[in-house]
Amino acid sequence: MALDRRTLLGSLVVLGGAASVSAPVVAEVIPSRPSFPLPETASPQLQALIVERKNNVAWKMVPKDAAEWRAIVKASSTEIEKRDAAWPTKYGVTIQEDRLGDVPVYWVTPKESPAHNRDRVLLNFHGGAYVYAPGRAGLEDAILMASRSGFRIVSADYRMAPDFPYPAAIDDAEIVWRELIKKIKPKRIGVFGTSTGGGITLALIHRCKKKGLSLPGALWAGTPWSDLSKVGDSYFTNEFVDTGLVSYDGNLGAAAKVYAGSHDLREPEISPVYGDFAGFPPTHLTTGTRDLFLSLTVRIHRKLRDAGVVTDLTVLEALSHADYVALPDSPESLQAYGDATAFFHRMLA
Amino acid sequence: MALDRRTLLGSLVVLGGAASVSAPVVAEVIPSRPSFPLPETASPQLQALIVERKNNVAWKMVPKDAAEWRAIVKASSTEIEKRDAAWPTKYGVTIQEDRLGDVPVYWVTPKESPAHNRDRVLLNFHGGAYVYAPGRAGLEDAILMASRSGFRIVSADYRMAPDFPYPAAIDDAEIVWRELIKKIKPKRIGVFGTSTGGGITLALIHRCKKKGLSLPGALWAGTPWSDLSKVGDSYFTNEFVDTGLVSYDGNLGAAAKVYAGSHDLREPEISPVYGDFAGFPPTHLTTGTRDLFLSLTVRIHRKLRDAGVVTDLTVLEALSHADYVALPDSPESLQAYGDATAFFHRMLA
Repeated sequence: MALDRRTLLGSLVVLGGAASVSAPVVAEVIPSRPSFPLPETASPQLQALIVERKNNVAWKMVPKDAAEWRAIVKASSTEIEKRDAAWPTKYGVTIQEDRLGDVPVYWVTPKESPAHNRDRVLLNFHGGAYVYAPGRAGLEDAILMASRSGFRIVSADYRMAPDFPYPAAIDDAEIVWRELIKKIKPKRIGVFGTSTGGGITLALIHRCKKKGLSLPGALWAGTPWSDLSKVGDSYFTNEFVDTGLVSYDGNLGAAAKVYAGSHDLREPEISPVYGDFAGFPPTHLTTGTRDLFLSLTVRIHRKLRDAGVVTDLTVLEALSHADYVALPDSPESLQAYGDATAFFHRMLA
Repeated sequence: MALDRRTLLGSLVVLGGAASVSAPVVAEVIPSRPSFPLPETASPQLQALIVERKNNVAWKMVPKDAAEWRAIVKASSTEIEKRDAAWPTKYGVTIQEDRLGDVPVYWVTPKESPAHNRDRVLLNFHGGAYVYAPGRAGLEDAILMASRSGFRIVSADYRMAPDFPYPAAIDDAEIVWRELIKKIKPKRIGVFGTSTGGGITLALIHRCKKKGLSLPGALWAGTPWSDLSKVGDSYFTNEFVDTGLVSYDGNLGAAAKVYAGSHDLREPEISPVYGDFAGFPPTHLTTGTRDLFLSLTVRIHRKLRDAGVVTDLTVLEALSHADYVALPDSPESLQAYGDATAFFHRMLA
């Protein structure tokens, strides 16, 4: 879901008129929850973000049809690409377009890369609730990870709803994986993603197991959207506490529906927490104490533990969903990418 | 804080008259927070506990002087000892009184113990906010761990407030540690505790480092009271979400004051999160998504990570503070003790 440095679709609230977005932005205030003091344990950047998001209403936008989805996705992508135009320079990476099978991908290559990383690669799936961040708008997580880890990243521009609902995204993930392991040994590949990208990372393993494909050497699922069905205690306890995603009941829940279509939301390739985790690669997980997906992350951790999989968990103080992407220069972001990098270095062949 | 299977001091609300407890139990309702649906991701036992605690007001009891503290501690201990009378039989352990230095201790020995555990031991510090659970009332965590891990446990009956404020508890921890390492190699000893016991576990290492003493082989700090000063985001975000501890502003905050006395609450031996974690033994940490001490646990995890210490974190879905002691026969309790046991087996020489 981390498509936007401020809020999910935050810029659209501002952009509304200019981009001809007609999706309804309800002006109600957020339902009553105690107003919490600014956490003194959070970085100044995170404190500022919490203040800035007080008027976040973007989570309420529920497009009424496919045309409205397309319009807000396009407006969002335009804004993100504009805002991130300087990222390759700032974070010291080059970006090349390519295809694996029929799927468009981007190679994100750090200018500085340790020698032992040159024959290893990370495959990334971007976030965005299976609707947002097509094309270059989906490269934030990949750019930050390339810059911080020194790994070369290949990021898949998979098909999305409303035009391509499930199983298109997972089909594309499988195609990319099949092509990639023709070039690089599977155990030298790590797979990662944040939010929806974390969900796809896990769903891809369910798919590979079903099809008997080789598995990657390690995974990082950052605050994965592992349950699209509004099951998980933090969907409730962190509602209106998470300042970015805020609530399931709005844009997020609408995206779940448009992606799943006629499928049961609890199919393991849609909500990977319902799958079997036996034989999974070593998996690092990241979430925050305010994360709407806190429960979705720790439930995966439990499933992996119970399946005997090597797994590691980072929970960042006072972080809402995917703020480590939203605040790329914060100490919390450096911690999130640092922990994941250390894990990949330990686990990849 | 986990002295009671139901709520902190829960039984006292019932016991009030009989035990001549005169501490005020205010009849106000809990301040408004949304009422959350029962988490379907929680075990039936945990769901039942959440329902049962709807009328929990025990967290509000603020004794007005030392005599009132003594009265409620005594009433609480009497009730716990009565309730737990069958525990040694039920959980298959024997209990022997002893002293290490001048400090009374209990040896809790499991009837069944794997051979490789016979020359290893775990040192336990009980919970109870530095005021509750003296004597046999402080043995719940030790009995459950002995039963589930097969380790022999020695549990320290350290001095507590109001009669013995800081530094008595940490002085006693040091005495017990010094005596124990005369008998058993430090690297074959694990130290653990829940809540206040987790805090003492961490504070003991700060003390050992300061005095140049040998360190244990591994630690388990379960939902440690690592910050007595009401700093940590979950003190606010999980207030009234945690159904056991509920809030800092009541019995808990009062206990912090009576323990710390004239000392700064942020002294590292009182609030160990403010200490230096370089050189700490490998440390396992446990908390829950509803835990009032969620932030207090993950802040310790971060400090350990940043200090390069081997550390591992378990976050249990929908668990309030220390419910793994409060619900000893729940799946969540088996998970908590199981993860800690696996960690000690990996880390102890």
